[in-house]
Order: sequence, then C-alpha cells, then structure tokens
Amino acid sequence: MKKTLLLVLLGTAPCFADEGMFLPNQPPRELLRKNYDFELTDAFLDRAMKASIRFNNGGSGGFVSPRGLVVTNHHIGADTLQKLSTKENNLLANGFLAKTDADERKCPDLELNVLQEIVDVTARVQSAVKAGMEPAAALAARKSIIAKISKESFAKTGLRSDVVTLYQGGLYHLYRYKKYTDVRLVMAPEHAIAAFGGDVDNFEFPRWNLDVCFFRVYENGQPAHTPSYFPWSAASPGEGDLVFVSGHPGTTNRLETHARLLHRRDHTLPYTLQMLRHREALLLQHAAKGPEQKRLASGDLYSTANARKALTGQFQGLLDPTLLAKKGAAEGDLTLGSPWDNIRKAQLALAQKTPQSPLTLERAYFLLERGDAFDSKLFKIARHLVRLADELPKPEGERLPEYRGSGIESLKLQLFSPAPIDAELERVKLTGSLSFLKELGGDIEAFAKESPAQIAARVVHGTKLADVEVRKQLFAAGKQGIDASQDPMILFAKAVNQTPRQRYDELEEIQQQAYQKIADARFKTHGQSIPPDATFTLRLAFGVVKSYEEDGGKIPYQTTFAGAFARSAEHKNREPFDLPPRWLSSRDKLTLSTPFNFVSTADTIGGNSGSPVLNRAGELVGINFDRNRHGLVRNFVYTEVQARHVSVSCEAVLHALRTLYGAEALVGELMKR
Amino acid sequence: MKKTLLLVLLGTAPCFADEGMFLPNQPPRELLRKNYDFELTDAFLDRAMKASIRFNNGGSGGFVSPRGLVVTNHHIGADTLQKLSTKENNLLANGFLAKTDADERKCPDLELNVLQEIVDVTARVQSAVKAGMEPAAALAARKSIIAKISKESFAKTGLRSDVVTLYQGGLYHLYRYKKYTDVRLVMAPEHAIAAFGGDVDNFEFPRWNLDVCFFRVYENGQPAHTPSYFPWSAASPGEGDLVFVSGHPGTTNRLETHARLLHRRDHTLPYTLQMLRHREALLLQHAAKGPEQKRLASGDLYSTANARKALTGQFQGLLDPTLLAKKGAAEGDLTLGSPWDNIRKAQLALAQKTPQSPLTLERAYFLLERGDAFDSKLFKIARHLVRLADELPKPEGERLPEYRGSGIESLKLQLFSPAPIDAELERVKLTGSLSFLKELGGDIEAFAKESPAQIAARVVHGTKLADVEVRKQLFAAGKQGIDASQDPMILFAKAVNQTPRQRYDELEEIQQQAYQKIADARFKTHGQSIPPDATFTLRLAFGVVKSYEEDGGKIPYQTTFAGAFARSAEHKNREPFDLPPRWLSSRDKLTLSTPFNFVSTADTIGGNSGSPVLNRAGELVGINFDRNRHGLVRNFVYTEVQARHVSVSCEAVLHALRTLYGAEALVGELMKR
Repeated sequence: MKKTLLLVLLGTAPCFADEGMFLPNQPPRELLRKNYDFELTDAFLDRAMKASIRFNNGGSGGFVSPRGLVVTNHHIGADTLQKLSTKENNLLANGFLAKTDADERKCPDLELNVLQEIVDVTARVQSAVKAGMEPAAALAARKSIIAKISKESFAKTGLRSDVVTLYQGGLYHLYRYKKYTDVRLVMAPEHAIAAFGGDVDNFEFPRWNLDVCFFRVYENGQPAHTPSYFPWSAASPGEGDLVFVSGHPGTTNRLETHARLLHRRDHTLPYTLQMLRHREALLLQHAAKGPEQKRLASGDLYSTANARKALTGQFQGLLDPTLLAKKGAAEGDLTLGSPWDNIRKAQLALAQKTPQSPLTLERAYFLLERGDAFDSKLFKIARHLVRLADELPKPEGERLPEYRGSGIESLKLQLFSPAPIDAELERVKLTGSLSFLKELGGDIEAFAKESPAQIAARVVHGTKLADVEVRKQLFAAGKQGIDASQDPMILFAKAVNQTPRQRYDELEEIQQQAYQKIADARFKTHGQSIPPDATFTLRLAFGVVKSYEEDGGKIPYQTTFAGAFARSAEHKNREPFDLPPRWLSSRDKLTLSTPFNFVSTADTIGGNSGSPVLNRAGELVGINFDRNRHGLVRNFVYTEVQARHVSVSCEAVLHALRTLYGAEALVGELMKR
Repeated sequence: MKKTLLLVLLGTAPCFADEGMFLPNQPPRELLRKNYDFELTDAFLDRAMKASIRFNNGGSGGFVSPRGLVVTNHHIGADTLQKLSTKENNLLANGFLAKTDADERKCPDLELNVLQEIVDVTARVQSAVKAGMEPAAALAARKSIIAKISKESFAKTGLRSDVVTLYQGGLYHLYRYKKYTDVRLVMAPEHAIAAFGGDVDNFEFPRWNLDVCFFRVYENGQPAHTPSYFPWSAASPGEGDLVFVSGHPGTTNRLETHARLLHRRDHTLPYTLQMLRHREALLLQHAAKGPEQKRLASGDLYSTANARKALTGQFQGLLDPTLLAKKGAAEGDLTLGSPWDNIRKAQLALAQKTPQSPLTLERAYFLLERGDAFDSKLFKIARHLVRLADELPKPEGERLPEYRGSGIESLKLQLFSPAPIDAELERVKLTGSLSFLKELGGDIEAFAKESPAQIAARVVHGTKLADVEVRKQLFAAGKQGIDASQDPMILFAKAVNQTPRQRYDELEEIQQQAYQKIADARFKTHGQSIPPDATFTLRLAFGVVKSYEEDGGKIPYQTTFAGAFARSAEHKNREPFDLPPRWLSSRDKLTLSTPFNFVSTADTIGGNSGSPVLNRAGELVGINFDRNRHGLVRNFVYTEVQARHVSVSCEAVLHALRTLYGAEALVGELMKR
C-alpha cells in the first residue's frame, strides 16, 4: 500500500505525556487542563515571556526582582567571568559577590534579550518566493523580504526584530526583543561547586551543583525597572509536582526527515565529533602547561568537552537501528520531486566532494565558512571587518544576514569588546585548527609556502587587532581602510574569504521549501499542536518532578547537600570533586538535608541552560542546568522513561547564599514581596 | 636535464655527523674513526649485541649483571607492572623491590629476545620471486621462502629465527635470537617519579625522570647466566662526550619515496591521529570515573597519549613544505614503470575507496584487519583462535606469517597469559572502537540489528574467554572446536573475519619489489653506508652529549635532582608533577647536584625506549627514555640542531637506589666487578 501524506504524518504525533517545547503563542492549554488539571492563564504566560531572558552567548535566564536582577547558570556566566578575570584575580575560579550596586562589575560584551511580542509573518515571507524560482533567486528573495520585515519592525518599535524560521520553513514569526547591553555581575559562587563533578558528572544524575550566577541589567546607568519577574520560592518541589521550564532550547531535529537524520549520522556528527576531539586534545595539552594557561583555556575547554559529550550521546542515539527504522517507517513518499525526495537530494549534495578539493560541500562550509579551520578570536574579528567593508555599502536586503539592521549593534558589541585576548592561546588554536584543515585534506593557498604553525605564528604575532582602537579605526575606514591594511591577520582573512556559503545557503533554501510543504500537510491534520523544532527562541515546557530506575536501582528525584560532601570524600576531595574551602570549613552551619538538585520530565535541550523552572503558582523553584545522559537523544526523540533535565533548587541557592556566602542583601532582594 | 638514478640517490646521502641507526653487521667503523678518533672493536660490538635486549612488547633493554639482571624503562615495564597489580596492591603506582631472588615476581607474558647471529639471505629470498609473477603469486612465493628459511634455521639452531626486511625490500637478513620467557620483576620506582611531568613533559627537555625498571631472566628456574653484560658506570658523561645507543628503533621512513610520504601526510597520519584522539577521549572519560577505572585504563592511556603526541609531531614535520620539497627534489624518475612510479601507484590504490564501502583500502585494512575497530583484548584472543583453527592445518609456507614456526610459541605466551582482563574496560573500548568504525562510514553486518554499544555489551559479557582454560580448550579443539563454539565473542570474530588483508599485502609486495630496485641502485653508488630504515631490530647509534638553544636561551645538556624539586614546587606538587612521598621526606639525604637526565645527538626513535647508552669503554652511563619534540621529525629526516634523545643517568639511578629505595643488594650486584 502506498503511504499517503496523512498516514506518514501520523507517525510523528507525540506519544508521551510531557513532550513538547511549546511556542509562547501556541501554549498547550488543553494538554495541561487534561493531563494536569492546570489552567494556563494569560497572566502566567505573560510573565513567563517577559521575565524569561535569552543570553545571546547561548543560554537562558530570568528576572528575579523588579530591579533588573537576573539569575542564570554559572556556566552561562562563565564566559563573562573569564573576561573579567586576570591572572591575579580569577573570578571564574574564586567567585564574586557585589555587596552593593556600586560593587557590581560591568560585563564587556554581554547582550540579554527579552521577548516582548510575536507577529506571524509567514504569508509575507512565503509570497515573496515565487513558484519556479531558481534556488539562488528564491534565496535572494527570501533574504530580501526578511530583511525588509526586520527593518520595518525596528523602525516602528525600536525593538530588536528577528524573523524566526519555524518548522524548518513551515512558519515565519517576527520576534521583537527588548535588548539589554549594560549588564553587570552581581554574584557567582566558586567554579568548583558550580561545576562540581566536572566533565565526569556532566550529563549525569545524581548531581550536586550550585550552577547559578546573578547579573543585573541597567538602563541609563540605573538598575532597570523589570516589573515582570519570577518570585523566588523558598520551598523545593516534591515527587510528582508539576513544573514548567521557560527558556530557549537551542536546536532539536525531531521533525527532520529520515534522509536528513541519516546524513547527520553518517556525515555531520562524525565530522563534528572529530573536530571537537581534535580541539579538546589541543586545549588539554595547552592547559597542562601551567595554571595561567589552564585559566585562559578553561572556557574553550568547557564548551568543547560539553559539546563532545552531548554529540557523542546524539551519535550513539542514531546508531541504534530501531530509532532510525521508526523514523524511516514514518515517511515513505520518496517519489521524484516529493518534498522528502528533495530533502534527500540536498543531503547527497552536501555529502558530495567539491571539484577542487577532497572536502565535501558540508565540510568545506564548516571549515572555511563557519570557521572551524580558523579557530581564533582575532581571525573572527578580521573576517568581520573584511566582510563589513564589502557588505555595509549594499542595500540591507542584499547583505549577508549577520550584517543587517538591528543585528549590527549586537555584532559591534562583540567586535569592539575590551575583553582581553591571549596571543599564545590564539596561536595554539589557530595552528591546531589549520592543521585540522590539512588533516581533512583541505587546502588554502598559504600552505604552499608555510606550515600551519608558521602561518599562525606570523599572523597572530604580527596583527594589531588585539587593540580595540585599531578595530574601530578599521571599521570606520570601511572598504578603503581594509584595502590599504597591511595587518597580517586582515590579509589572511582576505586570502581565505572565498567559501562555499552561497551553494550551502541555496541547499538550505531548497530544504526550507520542502519542509514548508511537509509542514503545510501536517498543519492540515494536526494543526500546530506539534510544536516546531527548537530554534533558540522562547519555549514553554512542562513535566513532573520524578525519580527513575537505572541498572535495577532507583535514582531519587533529588539530592541534598549531604550528598555533595559524601561524593567529594569518595574522590578524596580531588578535582573535579573538590569542594571550595568555605564549604569544607562551614559544613557544620549547613542544614545538610537541604534539597540541592532535582530532576523532572520536562522537555529541554542545550540552550535551556539557566532556564527558570516554575511551579503551578509561577514562582521560581529551580534553575535548569543539565540533562542526564538518557536525555541526550532528545534531539531526535523525546523520552521520559529515564531521560530527565536537572535543576538546582532555589531552596539550595537561598540556603547557600545565606549560610556560606554572606549575601544578605541579595537574599533580601530575592525574598522581598 | 633528466635526472639519472645516480643523481637522484645522491640527495639521500647523510648530511649530518651523527645520523644513523647502524646494523650490527655493518658498523660505522670508518665514521667513528674519522669523526671521533674511536676504534670500534669486535669486542665492543659483540657485547653490544649480546647484552642488548629486545622487549617484545615494544622496547629495549640491556643486561647489567652476569646473573641475568636487566634494566629497561619503567614505561616499558609498565604493561607488566599493571598486569601484576591488583586494586589493593598497585605496583605500577607504588613501585616494587625484591629484596632477594625469592621475592622476584614472575611476569605473566613477557618475552625478551637477545640477538645471537645475523645471516644474509637476500639472494635466496629474491630468487624465489621470479620476474613477471603477478603480485599474488610473488607474495605467496616470498612468504613461502621466508617461512622455509625460518623453519630450517629454527630446526638447526633452536633459536627464534626471524627474516627481517631491510631497505623496504632491498635486503633480507635472518636474525637468530635467544629467547627468554621466564622473566621476573626485580625493582620498579613509583610511577610518579618514573613518569614525572606525565603527558605535559613527554617529548620535552629539561626532564627529571627516574624512568627505569629492573627485571631478571631465568632459565630452568635459576637466574640465567649472561656473561655479556654492560658494567654500570657510577659517573655521568660530560658535555661533548661520545656516547652509543644500542637498542631497537621501531620505524623510520627516511628512505621512503616522496609519493609514500605524501600518502603518509594526507592519509595515514590523519587517519591514525583521528583514531588515537578518539581512543584517548574515551579512555580519559572512563578513567575519570574513579581510581580503579583510572588504574585499569592507565596503560592504554599512556600508550595512546604517547602515540598521539609523537604522531602529531611527525604530522607537523610533514606539513612543513620545505621538508617535502627537498624529498621531492631528490627523486624524479616518475616515468611509467619506474620503481618510483610503481610506489606512487600503490599509494593511489591504498587511498582508493573499496567498492562496498566508503572506506579507503588502507582504512579498511587498519580498522578491520589491524583491529582498530575491535579494540578489545578478548576480541584479539578470539580472532587468533578463529584463525589458528584455519591456519595450523596448512603447510607453514602458506600460513599467515604470525602463525608460523617459532612465532607460535610467542603467540601462545600472549594467548594463554593469566594477566587479568577487566570486562568493563573491554566493553567501553569495544563500544568506542565499533562506534569509530561507524563514524568513518564503515559497516559490519551486526550493525543492521544492533548499535555498537549493544554488540559490545552482548559479546563482552557473554564470552567465557576471560578464562585461560577455556582458551586452551578451544585452541586444542582446533577447527572443530571453533565451528561448534557458541561463545558470542568467537561468533563475532568469525563474523568479521573477512578483511582486505590479501589486497593490502599484495600492494606491500609491489612496493617491496620497487624498493629492491631503488636499493640495488643505491648500493652501487653508496654501498650499504646509508643504514636501512629502522625495523625494530638491533641498531647502533652514536652521538655526543650536547646542550642546545631554544627560543634564544641555552638548554643545558643535563638536569639534576635539585631541578626535580624545583619543577614540582612550581606546580605545587600536583599530578603529574607530584614527587613520591619518599622523595619529599628524604630530600635532605640526596646530593641534589647529582646529574639526573642528559641529552645527546645520537639517532634514536620510538622502540629505543630502554636502550643502553654506553661510553667509549662500553660501560652503561644511561638508559634512553625519550626524544625532545625537535626529534619528532626524525622519522623523516635526521637533525641535530636541536633534536636530542633523553636518557636517565646511571649515576642518578645508583644514588636513588642507595639513598631512597634501600636497594643495597641490587646496587651491590650492579657495582660488582
């Protein structure tokens, strides 16, 4: 029997009670009413939206006072903590507490976004792309209309305005954000307790992590007025309690076709894992040279190890033949020209070697355009300066998306960041990433005369781009300035500026058109009850706090402070199980039975780090910081048998702030009603 | 001008004074006379041969008393130390000292070889391969004559008899070894001081390592009589002193053609580095789970990290365009059918994808035949049992080389070794290596039904091969036993027994024939004055103890005990810079100015670990244990500008044995004249 589109789509209906990362404007009211007897009110939703925060460096957070106080994960704040640290004063390792507003430390390049409004612009975007257009023309038309919509919205509202592609191309929504760029550090605990267990316990449970960090947003030099905030709950949730996660899940792939997932398994993930392991080995080697090298490399090391572990779990998930067989059985219309067939063909094109090199198109894109071959902050700055000189004179609709309208201000925040850049680490990373390009058979002209190590040493030690003033001058001088520059990093960025981006983007366009058709068919049967894949935009998930079984034993739904001391003793208080001195010396002051971390079935993914976890009353009961390893496969399928997300309990944070950190003012602000 | 064979070969003449890993039967008498006014006597050579030891697990050593006492590196003994360790008694970490012969610990599967005689069998081997034979026929003929020569030699002398291929096929020499399999552990220091600085300082200098370990060989239950031994010198060599290294360098590639080196750069090394980084990440992750996991994984971890670092250096060497350009300029006859052209074509064939899979022939060989995809001791045992059942009934000349004559006894030592095998580590490694096969696009039938993790769990937990008696029974039962076995590891080994080995070996044969022609031409001009590439057989190298410059500063030729304490303090005595308790507590008893490690220009490579370092009098002044990173490129070119090999001084060993380890009996035996 030939499967119809309808039958095919039925296979993708959610099977589990708590699956779903729901759009704020398509909330799961019915499900919550039916399954949990919970009435999702407009007030609850409005606060979830206006008090939830997107950290532009890849995480989530929430307002926890009307004076702009923000809570997120320590590991989301880590990048900023490192930028504020010096050899003498290592805030990332030792923590920080501002006793008063005046003590708060200004962050060099942090941008926080708070969603204010969503407008459906699907019809406008889709009508700009006419049937029969060649992919290049369709891509240009889509880019142009999206740029126009964003620009109009910004002009009208003054808000950062992003057009978000949902359902891989099924819907287009305009997201308007309030943007905060004056962000100050309020409090961070020691890295050792925030990341207790390190890479060993990452993606595991039980856990004992105080993975929190507080910032404050300012406007006009004053703490911002943020009437929408989450009241801090002094009580932890219990087994079976309903909780909500309001945050910004990064990426899932659940609605992708079988061919796309096969491509991920056979191409994208193997490549990315190889790249990450290469980078991790290099960074570990560098960090081992001494404490200062370790301090400087630690940010890159954390994110690399974290990604390696997450993607290893994803890859292992796709290696289970039953998972992919189910996906394959759920679709069947691979006849010529069907959307599934078009997506399949796009994968073949991505996996095709380019005529000039042994790299596949996808690898060439990742290495040369995404910059995997040029792992250097100074290089990234140089590339932006080179491209800005070309792009800024163009009309907005024709520019590369990152150089358009409201995005330019965000880019400049990064480009002109005063955060220090370590030349030695830059040289090591650029040598390594260029060598990696060579390992994969990639080539650039410079290799004919110099080895990767020689190139990296020359351009890193010769460039003046470490100086923010030099960057500003080059930016101001535009095309002429770039053409005249003899800075070796600028010259190098110019020499490697040709990448297969256009061809890659055209394949994205082809896939978007196909997914649009698949989504339209799905909408006819399911409406929009199945939420779109995650897009690092605000979503609401829900679930219950719940124990689970593993290897025949029961894993309780929560841990306590006592467990942290036991775990540390087990490992003789050795890194990464070393408790900070203040924990060891003040153990007697702590109520050791205080709930520390807890798990729930709610549907989360990377990007949800720092997400507010709310109870039925909309109060903050926890801050999400991880999933267990059973949850790593959630990119492709939701499961709640053993998969859990992990949160640090607000009760634990409160008790630690009071008892160990002497943070009375902060506690007062959190508990003020 | 068309380059002639003669001109081409001139390019490969040695340019440096101390280059060369010389064959024992082609000693560099003239060079030593001319450059160092040293008369290399027959007595010196005879002792160098009969007192030098090959450790079959990949290192070197030497006799240091007439009672079979052997010195080597701690890192060469590490595998045995680990096999003798338990959770409760970790000899690898804590060291060991036998106060009397009776306390010495029998090693489960160590085989030591001592060269007795070399016979040139080139004419016999080459005449068996007739002009015009197809590669398969030539390979069979060569295998057959080599098997015959070995078998005859063994029958005549009772000595292990290996035919060694020199000059990549230019010469064939028969090496006759005395074999010791009753080997007992005498003394090992703590891992922390043997491997001081760990992976961080590996391939670096200055160094402070007590990288030594003592064994004793037995015959008929008694310490073996070993009249050829190196007298232990109490004095360290000084700057400019001539020293000799008599050991077993593993592999060099200096006489390989340009095409072969390009293939190494573009295929072999990138693949191997990728494999090693995958394995290292996996092992690190496992080792981090707890102290017992760390103990069990440490052997694999050391060898993986060591290889990764060495090969990274090799790869970086080949990325220097001047190095390869020189190699390319030194040869030119790529006309059709020339030996260089034939070797080039063989490289193309190795890099060709096989019709059934996206793996190149070389990758398929490494993964499926060398076993990179099946990283498990139990699997290796199963594969041997499966193949032995097929091979043993055949005439020797038709068997795979590893299942012939005298080699079988060595193989049985491994196969029936009582060394413990940890099931959990086996499962983790097999899961990882099967996943790696998948990452590279490789396939085996089992993947259709199970993921790598599922396969590994099933076969590792289901097999009975951890029991040595089960292995012996299966071996004894031969083909019938294997056919009837339902052991899941045996079934798995049978299922993956088809590999591209025959095709790979035929390409080796084609290359050997080409190298034979290149070597013949070289012999006409240079004779055999340029030594052959290293083959893990006995070689004599020489050089001078010599400081060098780095980053504008001078690196002195030796370190002292004082330096070890300084380096440790610099790193707050943290791993891998932690000195053992006895070092810290007895610091005052040590003469801190005692020379610890020293460097010389002598030509060494991996495999030389544990090599005796001799002075002009033929006395032992040091034990080689490493090269510095400038020496990593020595696989391809010798250099003595900065490249040095690193030795632990005999004086340091003596002082430590006396002062810290209370090893009076051992010291007495070493110093007895």
